[in-house]
Parts: sequence; C-alpha cells; structure tokens
Amino acid sequence: MRASFIAAPVWLTGAGTRAAGADHPPLRVNGERLNRRLGELAQFGRNADGGIDRVAYSDADVAARQWVMERMREAGLDVRIDTAANIVGRRGGREAQLPPIMTGSHIDSVPGGGNYDGQVGSLAALECAQSLAEQDMALRHPLEVIIFQNEENGKVGSKAIRGQDPATYLDLGTHSGRTIREGIRFIGGDPDRLAEAMRRPGDVAAFLELHIEQGAVLETRDIPIGIVEGIVGIKRWQVTVTGFANHAGTTPMDQRQDALLAAARFIDAANRIVRETQGRQVATVGTLAAEPGAPNVIAGSATLTLEMRDLDLTRVDRLFATMQDAAGDIGRATGTQFDFREIYRTLPARTDNGMREIIAAAARELGLGTMSLPSGAGHDAQEMAQLAPMGMIFVPSARGISHSPREFSAPADIVNGANVLLNALVRVDMAGG
Amino acid sequence: MRASFIAAPVWLTGAGTRAAGADHPPLRVNGERLNRRLGELAQFGRNADGGIDRVAYSDADVAARQWVMERMREAGLDVRIDTAANIVGRRGGREAQLPPIMTGSHIDSVPGGGNYDGQVGSLAALECAQSLAEQDMALRHPLEVIIFQNEENGKVGSKAIRGQDPATYLDLGTHSGRTIREGIRFIGGDPDRLAEAMRRPGDVAAFLELHIEQGAVLETRDIPIGIVEGIVGIKRWQVTVTGFANHAGTTPMDQRQDALLAAARFIDAANRIVRETQGRQVATVGTLAAEPGAPNVIAGSATLTLEMRDLDLTRVDRLFATMQDAAGDIGRATGTQFDFREIYRTLPARTDNGMREIIAAAARELGLGTMSLPSGAGHDAQEMAQLAPMGMIFVPSARGISHSPREFSAPADIVNGANVLLNALVRVDMAGG
Repeated sequence: MRASFIAAPVWLTGAGTRAAGADHPPLRVNGERLNRRLGELAQFGRNADGGIDRVAYSDADVAARQWVMERMREAGLDVRIDTAANIVGRRGGREAQLPPIMTGSHIDSVPGGGNYDGQVGSLAALECAQSLAEQDMALRHPLEVIIFQNEENGKVGSKAIRGQDPATYLDLGTHSGRTIREGIRFIGGDPDRLAEAMRRPGDVAAFLELHIEQGAVLETRDIPIGIVEGIVGIKRWQVTVTGFANHAGTTPMDQRQDALLAAARFIDAANRIVRETQGRQVATVGTLAAEPGAPNVIAGSATLTLEMRDLDLTRVDRLFATMQDAAGDIGRATGTQFDFREIYRTLPARTDNGMREIIAAAARELGLGTMSLPSGAGHDAQEMAQLAPMGMIFVPSARGISHSPREFSAPADIVNGANVLLNALVRVDMAGG
Repeated sequence: MRASFIAAPVWLTGAGTRAAGADHPPLRVNGERLNRRLGELAQFGRNADGGIDRVAYSDADVAARQWVMERMREAGLDVRIDTAANIVGRRGGREAQLPPIMTGSHIDSVPGGGNYDGQVGSLAALECAQSLAEQDMALRHPLEVIIFQNEENGKVGSKAIRGQDPATYLDLGTHSGRTIREGIRFIGGDPDRLAEAMRRPGDVAAFLELHIEQGAVLETRDIPIGIVEGIVGIKRWQVTVTGFANHAGTTPMDQRQDALLAAARFIDAANRIVRETQGRQVATVGTLAAEPGAPNVIAGSATLTLEMRDLDLTRVDRLFATMQDAAGDIGRATGTQFDFREIYRTLPARTDNGMREIIAAAARELGLGTMSLPSGAGHDAQEMAQLAPMGMIFVPSARGISHSPREFSAPADIVNGANVLLNALVRVDMAGG
C-alpha cells in the first residue's frame, strides 16, 4: 500500500528562505503572466478557426515545446528532455534525499483543438515553480514541472514514465503522419532507450495536475474548483464491416451487401443502447471510412472506431456485449459481417484521498468553493496514479466545450485553479516525505 | 425530329467487295482473338486482387491507350486522338458523303475495377472493324471505332463530343490526382480546343455500344443478349451535416450534437425510403467522412454523397423530397443541420426504336434469345443519343458483379455480343443513310 497524504498543514521554516504554511496568507501566482503566456502558446499551430492544430510530433508541437523550454529556463528550472521525450523542468529541494513532487500536463492537441486543454495545467505548473522562486519559497522536495508528450494520441509520455511495454504503442500511427517511434525521435527522445525515462513507485512523492473540466458541471453549478474523484476507464474498438462492393446503378436494392448502410445502423444502435441504460457512461463513434469510397460504388467495407468510457469498466463490457448482439442482427439483415478488435484500454483511476483533502483545504484557504466530480476525459494523471499519490484540480469550461476551437476557460478561473495548485503543492510538500 | 432506323434488312452489293444482308449467313467475329485481347488489356493497371486500377489520366490509362491504338493500326484503321483525347479509329465507307456509324466504349476503370466494364465494348468494336476488313466487307458508311476517355469520372470524352460546356467539368479533380483539364493534356488532347472534337446532330449516322450488363437480370433469366430500353438518369448530392465537435469523454449523451450519428440515421432513412417505394429506382451512399475524425472527438461535421437513379427523374425528385423531410426530423432530434447540394445530374436517355429492332433482328439471325431491360449504369451512349440514333447491347455479368475485381462475363457470352454488334452494324449500314 502506498501512503496517503494527510491534509493537515505543517509549519516548517527553512534556513535562509521562507517556507509557507497555513498560518501564512495563501500564496498566489502571477495570474497576469499566466494568462498572457496562454495567449502566446496559442500561436503555435493556430488555425483559421482560432483553435490549434498542434498534434503531437508536428512542426507546431516542436515549436511550442521549444518555447515552453525557454520559459522554463527563464524561471530558473533545470530543463531536460527525457528519453521518452517528455520535458522535465526541475527545481531543487531542501531535503536532498526526498523524491520530487511532480506537476504538469501536456501541450499537444487533437486535430482542430482548443487553447486550454492541457495547456492550462502545463503553464500553471510552470507558473507555480516560477512563483515559488520569485517568492523565495524553498520546498523540502524537489519540484518537477513536466510536459508530457503526446497525451491526445494515447498518453504516450506518461505511459513510458510508468513503464508500459513500448511494443504496445511504438509502431502505432499518429495524426502527424509519423509513427510514435518516429515521433519520439522527431521531438528529441530516443525510442530505443525508453526504459531510462521510467519512474518506479517511490521515485515520485506525489503528482498533481490542474486541468479544465471539459464538461459543463462546474459552470452549471457556478463552482470555481472541481476536486476529481477519479478518471473514467476507456475502451476503444476498431469495428470493421465487410459487405460486397458493387455497382450503384445496376445492383437492385434487395441484392446489396452495403457495408456503409450496416455501419450506419450500428452507429444508431450503439447510441440507443448506451442511452437506454442508466448511468453516466458515454459511447462515441468519431471516425468512419468506407471503401472503395466512390459515389457510384456500393461500399464493400467500412471501418469505424467505437469508444466507451465509465468509472466502472464492467458496465462498459456489458454494454459492448449488447452492441455486439445488435451488430449480429444488423449483419444478418444486410448481408454483412462485423468484426470487433479492441485497440485501446485505460483502466479507471481513483484519485488519492489525502490529495483530495489537501486540494479542498487549499481552496478553502483561498475562499473558493469546491465540488467533487469524476473526469470523463483521460489524463496523464491516471498513469501517474500508478506511481504516486495523485490528485487533480478542475476549473470550469465554458459551455463544457472542449476538443474544439471554441474551448474556453475564463482568465479568473484559470488563476483560481493555479492558486489552488500552488497552495496544494506547498501542503503536499509539508505533509509528504 | 431525328429519323429512326427501320429493322428491315436491305440487300446491297458493292463494286468489287462483298456486302452482307439477311440472305447471307450472319457474319461472325474472331472470338478467340477478342477474348485473348481482353486478357492482354487486363495487364494494364492490374492490381493484387486480379482487377485493375486504371483510372483515367493514370500512367496505366496511357499505356492501355497506346496498346489499343497499336491494335487499331494493325486492323487497318486510321487512328487519331481528337482534341478531347478520345481515340478514333476510322475505316472508310463506299459512299463518301455519308456520316460515320460509330461504335465503341471506354477503357478507363473505377479504382479497384474489373476487366470487362467498357473493355468488352471497346475491343468488340475494334474486332468488328477488323472482321469486316478481313472478310472484305465494305460498308456504305465510314465506320468509326471510338474509345471514349474518362467514362468513369463523368463521361468526359462523350460529353465533349456532344458539346457540353467545358467550364462545367474542366477543373474538377479525378482519382488520378489530375484535374480533367490536366488529364486531357496528359493523354494527348488539348483542353483549349475541345470545340474541335464536337459532333453535331447529322454528323453521326448512328451509335452502337456493346457493354456488360453489370446487373444479374440476364444471368438470372439465362438470356444471352439484352436490348437496352434506355439509360437511367442520375442525380448526385453532396450532403453536409453540421453538428458540434466536442470531447467524447466529458460531453453527456444528451448534450451532444453528433454529426456522424445524424449522418448514420440519414443513411438508414434514405435506404428505407427508396425501398418502401414501388419501382426499380436505387439510392446509394458510397462515401462518408467525419470531421475532425478522431476516436475521442464527437464529430462536428460529416459529409456524404447521395446518389439516385431511375428512368424517370420525377420519381427521383419525389424520393429526394421525402429524404429531405427525414433529414429535417433527424436534424431536430440530434441538434444538427443538413445541407444538400446537387453535384451531378445526367438525364435519362431512351434508346432508338429502330436500333432496338435492328439489334433484335441481328440476334434472331444468330439464334440468340433477347430481352429488353433498362440500364442502371450510365454510359457514353447516353451522351451520343443526343447526336444520333443510339442502341445498346448487353451481355450477361456473372452474379451481376461490376466495379469490382470479381466482375466477369463468360468468353462465349462476349463473342455472342460481338457477333450481334457486328451484324447490327451491317444492318444499320444498309438501313441508314
């Protein structure tokens, strides 16, 4: 069993530097600088819709990473790229034997993404380190600000850190056109030496991540700080429908084996099945391709991705079984065959009890209301939860919109979140060890 | 009004050469040579599935065209490429003032196409010219064997001949990666001088095309020769569904505006609507793309093609109106919007009564059974029908499969079709003028 942190703040003083505690007024980040930098980061990969196309391993990704590393050096951090191509900016601690407290997020985006997902937590982590330095706050633990590489295409950087077998992902393709192996090399890592990026339980004192909610719960309830209960598990399948390609003019309607028609019926059925069942689970078909893909040819095959998420994967498995039954019926009715292949899975990850209490205490100290909620999105934090006590802080997302150019979090909410992160880091530093 | 041909054969003798008529035994092509050449032509663009990738304006298209022109020259034809890049092989007639009888088809394919569509009618036309020459048969009319360029991507060659405004197609893209303008130049035409390829009503005595049925009607009824009643009209629309791209994990099922779900329901609805209505009409959705197209992003937009075909376009328009109503309902239920844009239209084309009677007489003379049927596929013949009396002959397609590597017509059926074409050409020659 790994230890949980306790929320009770401990008053500590260092030699020659200040140390913070509950009796001091809460610390605050430089909010103006944080929001200004978010605007600067948004220039890398900016698209015509005002969002960003900054998929991992793209030129825009490389440029943004360079920019972040420069800001880290300005903040006095020792910057390195680990062999998995994560960016790590380290600030030393007062007690040399202690493992680092880590905080950070990612700066890669989905295609057509927004300016807040990952970026808020990345630059807030940097801002915390810089604020501590500027306020002469020396922590007991080293502090590592981490920018995980390629979160959006499989949390590759954090998986490498917690030691997932690289054979499971190195040869997968990405939106950049590069495989993950090629991409890691492209942005400065070494895919042949990933083991050197691994951390083991005990190597990390704690991990904290600030992130936008990406849902509308906090906004709807007008609560500035979300304390994450856990991160949903995800399963993805590639679904291949095989029919028979034939001439769209000469093949009567009742003699067709139309793979695209069958795929369409499956998409509708999967949506119905997941909505008919009680719970907060979600199911999404976000991609679909038909072959040969001409207006005058009946599709001979269709390929789609099915994704389901829930805090309870046994519920996901039950729904999937129902969807497979529906696919069987559709296949019999349309003369097509369905094949399902699981292509991705992440287990649900509960956050640490002590970390949740520390976040609540930090928010209370700042006079900010909180609520607990699950995360429907996956995060690097869930990989880090396998190595260390993990906590996550959410700030509100306008209209719950994310993975979109219209993603938005108010500057004041971002500053609130960064202040909670800063004070939570200090409390973790005092409590842990 | 243009004249119809009459079926009654007329006995004519020329000076110094034979001329055929109903009292002679029917003429026959060299069937072995015809089928051998089909196998040779199948080498150009051959793919791993045993079909061909010989889209118009590809290198394989150019190579196949070269090969056909060499065979035409061997058959004693005067060969030229017209400014629209159609290949025309001409054999002189006995009566210099008569316009040519034309016959031919195309040798370009769809992506992943088969070895019979267009190719049978192209090489059968060549075979008829060569057989006439070898049997010292002099026709009254000149005979032109024509290989229309780019049938599969819009019947470009035949449209140029009948004088469609080039502005409507020259800048369209094709599967080759070239625009039609670039493609015409690539294969030896001149897109700036297309008017020179035009023919006017009266310039062509008649047009005959032999083609595989591409459906299973002849095979199912065990009838060797189909006499085409007419070619269906086609309408195509690009359908754009606009929803809202959002995060697949954090957006509850009841707050989504999922464009791919709406598109899927539309595909199912269109299929149901076209099947619930009496008639031989067909509707096909052969392409679908979702944006942004990631497994973890709800699709913000989806684009698909809808195609409908029937001999009666007013029926197509009625069905389309019903589909638009269904799209409205789906849009309201899913929070999405549908937009329909017509991108392609060809009018139905009836074949000429006299030509149908001539084909029937030629088949009867050869002892071959016939039936009348519509063509669900579009053909260059429907463009030529605007210039001259037009007739089409079908031979059976195994299992009705076309636009597929598994496309097949039996060698004996192909020879039957070529023999009917040969004798029909002779009857047209005798009747027309």
